[in-house]
Amino acid sequence: MLVYPPARIGDRLQDVDTPALLVDLDALEHNIRRMQSMVVQRGVRLRPHSKTHKCAVIAKLQMDHGAVGVCAQKVAEAEALVLAGVDNVLVSNQVVGQRKLERLAALARQAVVGVCVDDADNVARMSEQAVRFGSQLNVLVEIEVGSERCGVAPGEAAVPLARQIDAAPGLRFGGIQAYHGGAQHLRQVEERQKAIANAVAGTADTVSRLQAAGLECETVAGAGTGTYEFERDSQVFNELQVGSYIFMDVDYAKNLDAANNPVSEFKHSLFVYTSVISRTTGVRAVVDAGLKALSFDSGMPLFADSNGLTYVRPSDEHGRILSSNGSPLPAPGEKLRLIPGHCDPTANLYDWYVGIRQEHVAALWPIVARGALT
Amino acid sequence: MLVYPPARIGDRLQDVDTPALLVDLDALEHNIRRMQSMVVQRGVRLRPHSKTHKCAVIAKLQMDHGAVGVCAQKVAEAEALVLAGVDNVLVSNQVVGQRKLERLAALARQAVVGVCVDDADNVARMSEQAVRFGSQLNVLVEIEVGSERCGVAPGEAAVPLARQIDAAPGLRFGGIQAYHGGAQHLRQVEERQKAIANAVAGTADTVSRLQAAGLECETVAGAGTGTYEFERDSQVFNELQVGSYIFMDVDYAKNLDAANNPVSEFKHSLFVYTSVISRTTGVRAVVDAGLKALSFDSGMPLFADSNGLTYVRPSDEHGRILSSNGSPLPAPGEKLRLIPGHCDPTANLYDWYVGIRQEHVAALWPIVARGALT
Repeated sequence: MLVYPPARIGDRLQDVDTPALLVDLDALEHNIRRMQSMVVQRGVRLRPHSKTHKCAVIAKLQMDHGAVGVCAQKVAEAEALVLAGVDNVLVSNQVVGQRKLERLAALARQAVVGVCVDDADNVARMSEQAVRFGSQLNVLVEIEVGSERCGVAPGEAAVPLARQIDAAPGLRFGGIQAYHGGAQHLRQVEERQKAIANAVAGTADTVSRLQAAGLECETVAGAGTGTYEFERDSQVFNELQVGSYIFMDVDYAKNLDAANNPVSEFKHSLFVYTSVISRTTGVRAVVDAGLKALSFDSGMPLFADSNGLTYVRPSDEHGRILSSNGSPLPAPGEKLRLIPGHCDPTANLYDWYVGIRQEHVAALWPIVARGALT
Repeated sequence: MLVYPPARIGDRLQDVDTPALLVDLDALEHNIRRMQSMVVQRGVRLRPHSKTHKCAVIAKLQMDHGAVGVCAQKVAEAEALVLAGVDNVLVSNQVVGQRKLERLAALARQAVVGVCVDDADNVARMSEQAVRFGSQLNVLVEIEVGSERCGVAPGEAAVPLARQIDAAPGLRFGGIQAYHGGAQHLRQVEERQKAIANAVAGTADTVSRLQAAGLECETVAGAGTGTYEFERDSQVFNELQVGSYIFMDVDYAKNLDAANNPVSEFKHSLFVYTSVISRTTGVRAVVDAGLKALSFDSGMPLFADSNGLTYVRPSDEHGRILSSNGSPLPAPGEKLRLIPGHCDPTANLYDWYVGIRQEHVAALWPIVARGALT
């Protein structure tokens, strides 16, 4: 239950035990500053998504640089962050079930807490718990703008829900949530632009129908790292929920298809540090990071420093390393940095970030919302 | 860092918060008893693999039923189990690097500890640490019998390594490790039988060459849930390291191709409990278990109790549910049991097993080696 950190402050990088999750602190800070300046230059607010990092230290760094708060995806994530001092969290997701609503309402006594809804019965139950706990929740109506996931259809369907929220004790109508997840990973910038143009149109229509009903949207929220430029410049969205930009990953690197692509502003700052544990043939080496140390849903990791090496065929605790161009295979004991295929579920496998600066351990940050599923 | 359990003892199943990892205690105990009797009837020892469950309570249950000890795959897993009272652990893997060897040697003061090797330099460094910590390690030479992973080639290559171990202070030559991981998931029982016949031949050859060199193999270890019958009946292997049989999963269920298949002896005992959080269209429902609540490396989970529902397109915290035969889509708040695609990396995502008997919570077991990566 309590995993101790794989290094001590001051250790040399090569003495960090493996597998470990490394954060390049200079690259992380670059990414935080860069996104903040990219967003505020157009008068839009930044509320980064903490589901990427699950770390209160990083959430507070983002807020120190100007973010108005953070998003979380689960009540348990929000709890972990608030208990660690983060004072403004939007649960950008549906919260369903008595126990979760009790916890959400209780949490809103300790911090500014928001949540999304797409169901009238859920609004009624949420109001009951907010009243019971004497708290106020800021509630956004979620509309479905292309993710094919949660949310009501854009347009008129949002109006009765917003009216219900506006009239419900303990709840405050806060605006609209409109996130297009699938658009983030479209490979061509033109495809992403087109998908978001469609999402913006549906969102704008919803906002004006609400306005016609006398319901102002203080917040119109959405966007991810792959599309944030388009929501930012839409004159409809006013709060961006980007997450992956702080770390980047192999999947987002595949979006680097066009000149002036916003994704190219950001650096890889997250690495899985792995050791070679076996090399008994000239064909392959074996490393100590497999399915429990990396997420493979978006494909294989890449080596950050070794062009000629390829990671293949993960098993639970092993990965196989091939040489694709005659590069020598690394020997047992050698340590290598991998860029994860997908940053969010990879970070969720670790308890500590090992912050690296100038090849030494400069920070150990607990991943307080790791495993915060409920 | 500290995730509290999603239920209390005595709660009704439907009141368990989600996502949660459920264990059907009757099915688990059936599986433990069944494997024990299947193995000992042929005079072979059982040393189940704890990498599947990472739980000291389950390890001790397995030993209470006759297992001689358990396997672990990482030093950190072995540490977590030993600290929780498990007194006999084989790390069925290479342990490389000064820090890990120090920890392994220290641990061998508190429990009977074994380890595998495939490299002469590693043996030398291991001996140094065993001497330094005043402990003794039981060392198996790993041979590569089809996994294309760690291990020296079967046959003569094992002899000099075994001699080196036998002569090294602090180390004791214990025998051979020969695990064929890839064979476990071959779909036809004949394919699995053939792969293991080949592994047995290489292992038998290695054992007799060692014997000719005056080195007796006290332990000849290997096998997994998909092939254990063949190693058990080989008259070469004498210790089986099966893991998945206690839980089973969708991937192992796909091995159910032939009559009298050993896999059919075992029941699904592991379930991810998930709630519907959104249903705004007639096309899909959305549940709260995605990439951080299930491992997808072996494919999609299946619904345990709902034939007409299909889980598709996971995202980080969501899964989409389709109805494949006109079954009604479940409503927000409804809870469903999923059979994970792959049990080991799924269990590693949780901090607690919620043990269920007669539709009520009867046990809460901490997953002490969850995240024990190093």
